[in-house]
Amino acid sequence: MAEQNQQILLVSRPKGTPKMEDFSFENISMPEPKNGQVLLKTLYLSVDPYMRGRMSDAKSYVAPFELHKPLNGGIVAEVVESRSSELEEGDIVIGNLDWARYQVADDAALRKIDPSVAPISTNLGILGMPGLTAYFGLLDIGKPQPGETVVVSGAAGAVGSAVGQIAKIKGTRVVGIAGTDEKVNYLKNELGFDEVINYKTCGNIKEALEKACPDGIDVYFENVGGEISDAVFTMLNKYARIPLCGQISLYNEENPDKGPRIQGYILKSSAILQGFIVSNYAEHFAEGAQELGKWVQEGKLKYEENIVEGFDHTIDAFLGLFTGANLGKQLVKVADPSK
Amino acid sequence: MAEQNQQILLVSRPKGTPKMEDFSFENISMPEPKNGQVLLKTLYLSVDPYMRGRMSDAKSYVAPFELHKPLNGGIVAEVVESRSSELEEGDIVIGNLDWARYQVADDAALRKIDPSVAPISTNLGILGMPGLTAYFGLLDIGKPQPGETVVVSGAAGAVGSAVGQIAKIKGTRVVGIAGTDEKVNYLKNELGFDEVINYKTCGNIKEALEKACPDGIDVYFENVGGEISDAVFTMLNKYARIPLCGQISLYNEENPDKGPRIQGYILKSSAILQGFIVSNYAEHFAEGAQELGKWVQEGKLKYEENIVEGFDHTIDAFLGLFTGANLGKQLVKVADPSK
Repeated sequence: MAEQNQQILLVSRPKGTPKMEDFSFENISMPEPKNGQVLLKTLYLSVDPYMRGRMSDAKSYVAPFELHKPLNGGIVAEVVESRSSELEEGDIVIGNLDWARYQVADDAALRKIDPSVAPISTNLGILGMPGLTAYFGLLDIGKPQPGETVVVSGAAGAVGSAVGQIAKIKGTRVVGIAGTDEKVNYLKNELGFDEVINYKTCGNIKEALEKACPDGIDVYFENVGGEISDAVFTMLNKYARIPLCGQISLYNEENPDKGPRIQGYILKSSAILQGFIVSNYAEHFAEGAQELGKWVQEGKLKYEENIVEGFDHTIDAFLGLFTGANLGKQLVKVADPSK
Repeated sequence: MAEQNQQILLVSRPKGTPKMEDFSFENISMPEPKNGQVLLKTLYLSVDPYMRGRMSDAKSYVAPFELHKPLNGGIVAEVVESRSSELEEGDIVIGNLDWARYQVADDAALRKIDPSVAPISTNLGILGMPGLTAYFGLLDIGKPQPGETVVVSGAAGAVGSAVGQIAKIKGTRVVGIAGTDEKVNYLKNELGFDEVINYKTCGNIKEALEKACPDGIDVYFENVGGEISDAVFTMLNKYARIPLCGQISLYNEENPDKGPRIQGYILKSSAILQGFIVSNYAEHFAEGAQELGKWVQEGKLKYEENIVEGFDHTIDAFLGLFTGANLGKQLVKVADPSK
């Protein structure tokens, strides 16, 4: 316990793209667990696009981060001291925890992980929030049917790459949209997407979509918003379904985004546009995680992790989400497990 | 059969708001029914906002009207000569028929009306397409729950006025949006809406909505589009439902409409925006019409008809839909039944 403890605070609400100065690393003392609590050492920390929304104080689906308090999110940690009857030293757990090297938490707020199933980091990725987001958004809202065309934007991200593979498992034609040739190659050659459009080099995105989707679009898994979406909305088939998961292209916009109103397209195609957040499905997480784990073990569902080493680089890793640099789930590795 | 026959043709595709010159009245001969057909005399003719869409040749949910062919729509007619074993002279029928004083039709394309249930014109209104649009859009998509807040735009129209009343029957708080004080008074005092906003005189529509909907908005039955919708979308409660029925404010716009992108609001509230057209529910029309008829007979569901007299005034009646002049269902009375 001689190690130094440290946490990351939000010190100002970002305007536009967050900057380093919006955050502060603070040295703090090592906390002591009380009865029913454990002391945790952070092993892996998840950075996610939705956190940008929590940095603003606008009303949203999750409460905003508080100023001058530690940021928080999904974290895999090791129990290093236990005053809980449920958990013991050496256990690996997951929870929504502070961005700190060490912290105490109530045992009830943690879920124990079985490290023998898959690498523990996957509980923040393909078997965790991003995998479950893909699973429930695509299957519950998108309802893909064999032979249909599924388009997914942000296709190389942690959610998007799972969406495309699950859509393939369900027998659909899958068209991804991504922003680098490396991602395009990965999605086509490694993950078996039928077509992938590089929106940065394809020229006219609508023409590229029309070529890639000769039978129109039945399901659009929406991660990005903006002009890519505008093009997709013009191509919806009757009864199209649009799971609306994110709008990453717009999170750093200071003013409300303007564009073609989409209602006309939704109306003409009797389509469904449905926003969601994975916690809407909390009651069904166990079922989803089991199915995802089965597909991973069968080799039907692959995943990439982009791991930045070191707590010091947490903010770099977060900011990287908005530059289109990441392939797969973005994680920060803070420490190795003790054993 | 010595009467003159006449039909109305679409002679040019309107640019923006349709003009008289886009249509032509043509004198034609009296047609002769063949076996299985009847000769029909048009009694009531329905003019509807969706017809504007059919005057363009853009892809939509219904095929465009053909140039230099008669327009068509919902018509109540009398059988004046029958070569059908199903229908006899004097029967009153409804069907999708040409805008003509007289025409022949296959008996299979017609549905016989029982004039004893309600005035025959109601088969084009509260018991017909507009009533069924309100019924299925509100109940199947909107799913109003007791105590929730339901907002309906175009509230004094044939669809909107039925939506608000059905929402009241379902125990919700109903807020209408309409464009004249006469409509506001009618909806509040005659139909029992809880609040009605005159969007033309209320000043800031968002402030007016916030005052009328202190608990936010759970269901938005969307008929109009444009700035009214933009304001509503900022006020959606979690899991809000938006039956998207029409966009009358935009039908005559020549360029794609631009405005704030709404995806962010749908996402934040985990809302559902679903486009529909009443024909999606064709299998369930009998059930819907029966329920609507029951409510009408019980006095729970009132309706207004705005009847223009004379086939010559059909185009005036249609154009009036876009000036906000009509209260309730807009019809043209072409002729009285023989008996």
